[in-house]
Amino acid sequence: MSSAVTILMKPVEGFGVSKVVDSDNPNFKPGDLVSGFTGWEEYSLIRKTEQLRKIQPDDHIPLSYHIGLLGMPGFTAYAGFHEVCSPKSGEYVFVSAASGAVGQLVGQLAKLHGCYVVGSAGSSQKVDLLKNKLGFDEAFNYNDETDLVAALKRCFPQGIDIYFDNVGGEMLDAALLNMRDHGRIAVCGMVSLHSYHDPQGIHNLFTLVTKRITMKGFLQSDYLHLYPRFLDYVISNYKQGKIVYVEDMNEGLENAPAAFVGLFSGKNVGKQVVRVACE
Amino acid sequence: MSSAVTILMKPVEGFGVSKVVDSDNPNFKPGDLVSGFTGWEEYSLIRKTEQLRKIQPDDHIPLSYHIGLLGMPGFTAYAGFHEVCSPKSGEYVFVSAASGAVGQLVGQLAKLHGCYVVGSAGSSQKVDLLKNKLGFDEAFNYNDETDLVAALKRCFPQGIDIYFDNVGGEMLDAALLNMRDHGRIAVCGMVSLHSYHDPQGIHNLFTLVTKRITMKGFLQSDYLHLYPRFLDYVISNYKQGKIVYVEDMNEGLENAPAAFVGLFSGKNVGKQVVRVACE
Repeated sequence: MSSAVTILMKPVEGFGVSKVVDSDNPNFKPGDLVSGFTGWEEYSLIRKTEQLRKIQPDDHIPLSYHIGLLGMPGFTAYAGFHEVCSPKSGEYVFVSAASGAVGQLVGQLAKLHGCYVVGSAGSSQKVDLLKNKLGFDEAFNYNDETDLVAALKRCFPQGIDIYFDNVGGEMLDAALLNMRDHGRIAVCGMVSLHSYHDPQGIHNLFTLVTKRITMKGFLQSDYLHLYPRFLDYVISNYKQGKIVYVEDMNEGLENAPAAFVGLFSGKNVGKQVVRVACE
Repeated sequence: MSSAVTILMKPVEGFGVSKVVDSDNPNFKPGDLVSGFTGWEEYSLIRKTEQLRKIQPDDHIPLSYHIGLLGMPGFTAYAGFHEVCSPKSGEYVFVSAASGAVGQLVGQLAKLHGCYVVGSAGSSQKVDLLKNKLGFDEAFNYNDETDLVAALKRCFPQGIDIYFDNVGGEMLDAALLNMRDHGRIAVCGMVSLHSYHDPQGIHNLFTLVTKRITMKGFLQSDYLHLYPRFLDYVISNYKQGKIVYVEDMNEGLENAPAAFVGLFSGKNVGKQVVRVACE
């Protein structure tokens, strides 16, 4: 028995789905499936068992979804959209890095909530995915745009109520100029940190005042009391075919470093997963 | 009869306190005192009477306070602190432009709420005012500091829960690095707009995520339903000597342009007022 799926988030540790081989903890028995922090390795010795979550096997749900759609990225999308963005049906929602592990679910949750949704991504393949598979109303490739302010103005002639920000930087500055009064910006972790360190800085924060915008950073870990409700909602909609999830599956631990590096150049399409072993 | 007090906010219009000389509106009789938009002039013809608010004369409250402590700046402080900052007793509050028309009341409201309050200002005279007259726990002159991040760290070794931002720019960037988890930043209008246009930009927004900070721009006009409650609270505390208010009074319409320009170099100490006429 071995680690089945590992997603790469740290050089040594990452979220993974594993099967228990042996255990001296009465809460975990050999054969149990768990998700949580594991190593980039075929067999892991896990001492911090409080970070593990038991998985109920379900023939209709791929195991890897427990580190994507039903794991941290999916829950980040759910908590961020429903708890941070205060969405109302009919509102105009913009999602950056929209085909990524988090963004693709944000867009689908917004559609289920009755919003109009536009996503940005870095290739025509991803734009096609957003429009034709993930149900976004509109999408654009930021690499094709010379003026992001104008691109957003074209997609949102009436302005943006909610911006789910996965990237920061120039896109955030452009979104600020396209927000509607009382707009909300959910600032979502990790990838955006690189952009925020952009030496150019953010210049359009004055719109926070004139448009009374709320900008809120968040971490999914503050909302864990909502996790059961999230699972019910997403699994139910997934089984009804109302939610889909796109993964970029690499095979073999030896391909993990390249998959990790690819995240920073946008090489992955959808949630990046590495299959370490499979029964 | 003539305009009694005018504060300068626009080249032609500004908030003022006036006595009605003549009126064909049944809601306003000669002799009534009103505050609201008036001109930079000794006599004004006011057609937009819906913007005027009648004043009940009170021997214990200077008329000019109706455009400062009890007017738009005072209400901005009240709405911003109580409605935007979600303050709790014992929290650590930082106010920039702290001796200004808005800031000086923010600090006093925070003290009345049981908070620890530090203010920044641009001269030793203003710092002295903050510490010895306005009841701030601590204050510093930003012109004396070579490193604003270090200055805030010195004043808030435990970090900042609430930043009431009147200036933006470099001070906002420094505050972002000193915020505590779940901190709140109220972004307050006008003066800050100049700083936000700073070509340097804001670089430390990544802390919004790591510290789960909420940053919210606001305008007092969205909270007018709270105006009666504000008046009761501030007048009651003022009469008990628990709130004071500092004005910078200039005499004569001819000094209005210089007083207006002085706002941008921080020449004024406290709320800038121009007395156009006095009975």
